[in-house]
Amino acid sequence: MDNTYLIEKDFKNLLKEQSAYQEAIALAQWDLRTKIPENGIEQRSEIIGFLSEKSHQLETSEKMKYFIDLLKDNTNDEIMIKTVAECEEKYNRNRKIPHNEYKEYVMLQSKSEAIWQEARKKSDFALFQPYLEKLVEYNKRFAAYWGYEDNIYDALLHNYEPGVTTKELDDIFPQLKNSLSSLLERINLSNYKPDPTVLKGHFPKRNQENFSMEVLRQMEYDFTSGRLDETVHPFAIALNKHDVRITTRYDEQDFRVAVFGTIHEGGHALYEQNINQDLVNTPLATGTSMGIHESQSLFWENFVGRSKAYWETYYDLFKTFAPSHYQQIPFDDFYRAVNEVKSSFIRIEADELTYPLHIMIRYELEKALINDEIKVKDLPHLWNEKMVDYLGVRPTSDREGVLQDIHWAGGDFGYFPSYALGYMYAAQLKEALNKEMNLDKLITTGKFTKIKQWLSDNIHHYGKMKKPLEIIEDVTHEKLNSDYLVNYLTAKYTDIYKL
Amino acid sequence: MDNTYLIEKDFKNLLKEQSAYQEAIALAQWDLRTKIPENGIEQRSEIIGFLSEKSHQLETSEKMKYFIDLLKDNTNDEIMIKTVAECEEKYNRNRKIPHNEYKEYVMLQSKSEAIWQEARKKSDFALFQPYLEKLVEYNKRFAAYWGYEDNIYDALLHNYEPGVTTKELDDIFPQLKNSLSSLLERINLSNYKPDPTVLKGHFPKRNQENFSMEVLRQMEYDFTSGRLDETVHPFAIALNKHDVRITTRYDEQDFRVAVFGTIHEGGHALYEQNINQDLVNTPLATGTSMGIHESQSLFWENFVGRSKAYWETYYDLFKTFAPSHYQQIPFDDFYRAVNEVKSSFIRIEADELTYPLHIMIRYELEKALINDEIKVKDLPHLWNEKMVDYLGVRPTSDREGVLQDIHWAGGDFGYFPSYALGYMYAAQLKEALNKEMNLDKLITTGKFTKIKQWLSDNIHHYGKMKKPLEIIEDVTHEKLNSDYLVNYLTAKYTDIYKL
Repeated sequence: MDNTYLIEKDFKNLLKEQSAYQEAIALAQWDLRTKIPENGIEQRSEIIGFLSEKSHQLETSEKMKYFIDLLKDNTNDEIMIKTVAECEEKYNRNRKIPHNEYKEYVMLQSKSEAIWQEARKKSDFALFQPYLEKLVEYNKRFAAYWGYEDNIYDALLHNYEPGVTTKELDDIFPQLKNSLSSLLERINLSNYKPDPTVLKGHFPKRNQENFSMEVLRQMEYDFTSGRLDETVHPFAIALNKHDVRITTRYDEQDFRVAVFGTIHEGGHALYEQNINQDLVNTPLATGTSMGIHESQSLFWENFVGRSKAYWETYYDLFKTFAPSHYQQIPFDDFYRAVNEVKSSFIRIEADELTYPLHIMIRYELEKALINDEIKVKDLPHLWNEKMVDYLGVRPTSDREGVLQDIHWAGGDFGYFPSYALGYMYAAQLKEALNKEMNLDKLITTGKFTKIKQWLSDNIHHYGKMKKPLEIIEDVTHEKLNSDYLVNYLTAKYTDIYKL
Repeated sequence: MDNTYLIEKDFKNLLKEQSAYQEAIALAQWDLRTKIPENGIEQRSEIIGFLSEKSHQLETSEKMKYFIDLLKDNTNDEIMIKTVAECEEKYNRNRKIPHNEYKEYVMLQSKSEAIWQEARKKSDFALFQPYLEKLVEYNKRFAAYWGYEDNIYDALLHNYEPGVTTKELDDIFPQLKNSLSSLLERINLSNYKPDPTVLKGHFPKRNQENFSMEVLRQMEYDFTSGRLDETVHPFAIALNKHDVRITTRYDEQDFRVAVFGTIHEGGHALYEQNINQDLVNTPLATGTSMGIHESQSLFWENFVGRSKAYWETYYDLFKTFAPSHYQQIPFDDFYRAVNEVKSSFIRIEADELTYPLHIMIRYELEKALINDEIKVKDLPHLWNEKMVDYLGVRPTSDREGVLQDIHWAGGDFGYFPSYALGYMYAAQLKEALNKEMNLDKLITTGKFTKIKQWLSDNIHHYGKMKKPLEIIEDVTHEKLNSDYLVNYLTAKYTDIYKL
């Protein structure tokens, strides 16, 4: 036993080194996106590449293998057992990729992102096409190295949502699509439409910032373990659980961008800030999957931030930050305008209802690409066709179409489904919370602490100690079920559009 | 030759790794002092420690030794020759310290800094004394490992001002002291004293910031390769030559803190921003010594920023940022108030004339400590005695006395002389510039570009390609000479105090 104790101690030191690299990388990225002067960017990318390689070397080192083998069936500590399992999985997956292919791929990624930026600017898919073709090829090859049981796409999905399969998505997404499409149709036919123009007019950035900070405080985002900055593309990033930073974007013509963006990123941040302290400096000290992470951001953004309960209670507070013409806007007009549903081209600007449809388009296309059912060169056309089919609008340029997202340029195939999964998770979790407490009542009585605590106790706390579907089943006592999301959206929009 | 080319290429890759660690460390430090949330501080110190150890391991690695041995007498490239020499010196010095002693010392440093913070707060030297004793012991032991010819203190001085010896300082400082003391005496006897109260009154931070930015632009500080932030203790830090950041502190009761502080740090930053691009990713891509660095910050702060030429020309500009009561302050009253001489306790608040006297006190004490001529426990008393002797004032607490500076708490013995050396270098360099051009005329005609260019061509450009005294002699064609500083101060204060 003494010997195991010493081995565990050495292993923990190795994990601490790994955490140190991760923090250094996260800081370098945060700074790159928020504070770095223009001329520092080039060198910075190299530094991030260097530190990432060091971290990758450590993950796949003989030393790592040595500890995994020694500790695998030789420890009783639950955290240690799961830590070893996590390290083993990373070790195995990463070792399956030949080192030179990994290096080529990393270089291809950064090159492709730069080319994608340019292609998007020029709205010229042809420029990006050869890079995307290579990225798809690499991902297919990696998927083959990693292995899969049923569908090659499963191997990629595993990187973002371990435990979820293509088969499950193919079961659940069409149902969701049908429900949302018919709801969208009814909304489009409604004669009782919100008037979004009431929200127009100059809303000073400083006031938006102050209100956003106020909401973050309500959510109990811990400012002594985080900070809020401004960026073009908002994000949340955890350096460690005591330093989880968020960013937002201000549009002085539309306060919703900053306010709901801040709540969204704040939801991600709460997850990371509330992970069990015992997991610090292990690879378990982070959100368990992209989908569960998204469930936390969407929970706060939609079920709290866009809820009737919230605005009924805090509209007066909001008005103390808002331009004076808001004094004339009746609550109902305001609430309905905030929640307008409107098919649009850009995913990240989509409303609550159409958002999952944007995701499904991407899922279907990337699954088909990886399965060799379609060709990269046909993407722009197929994208636009699906937009017409799912949302009834046809993009007029590739910039507004297939070139809008960075994910594929970064080689992230298998990531998109997490967004829709996260939304379904969130709705199902909300139902579970409602069985114990009444969410709307917690909101109207200002008991945000209880909401945060429930999420922390049931989700945040575990970090990667539980797999995504394990969390869903432990908390909700059933399998993933899209009905909760459909019911929520139906009820909400039936009210707003008098369906 | 082909073989050498390949070896050099591999060596350059190793140096690039070293630069990557340095940038990661610098960023972690910058963030620690400017943006980090409170709860992130503890973990951050560990990350910095980890990265520093990695960097130290690389500097003292067998791989490094291999390249040094292979390339030492086997390259014709001047940059490569000096790079190898720099690496060899670092390798040799660092290898002389046993690894376990180095680690103990690093831990002692951070512990001591924390204790010093507390001791200063409580104004309780006894708390800090045992740590300072250990730090002195380590420094003496390290100095013995490194070796020296004449005085043990030389071995420490070498870390900050290579080429300068205790003997030289003992030649030059007493002369300087005598000249400054007699000048100070005459000033104290003058009946024509400036009235600093004219500068009193609330000066909004934002206006100070805007004026500071304006001055930085005049100096041609490159904002696309840097940024200005706010901190309690201002500093300049180079992540690389394309990312050199500065910070400043705002005192709304005294604009001089921010304005002269910003110019000072801007002077440091100009040095790093204008280093020859060919040196990037070598250990030569930074200022050659603490003293030469300080010469650049003081050149701008004092010879430009506090000069009559500057304020005669830009006082009107300044008044567009200043509170309205400045409209009533005649130029002469303003200029003289800005340049008031007054013996005070705190080094970093000292005026141009008394500043070097503060340095000499520290030099004499630390030299005596390292030479076993005095004991740590006697420092507070000896400090106060010297303050009376040099400046005519006696600190009433250790906080205002021996505990005011962080240097000793960080184990930095041999650092202080750089401040006075830098000032003498600056004055001597100014004289050299004046032989080619007229500094005051460049200032009054707004030709700051020419000032910056002259400093860049003669100093910045070289990075560590030249040793400090080599720069002084190459540019001024004579050895270090304190007369220039004395003459400058005498002329300036004769005018201001009508001596």
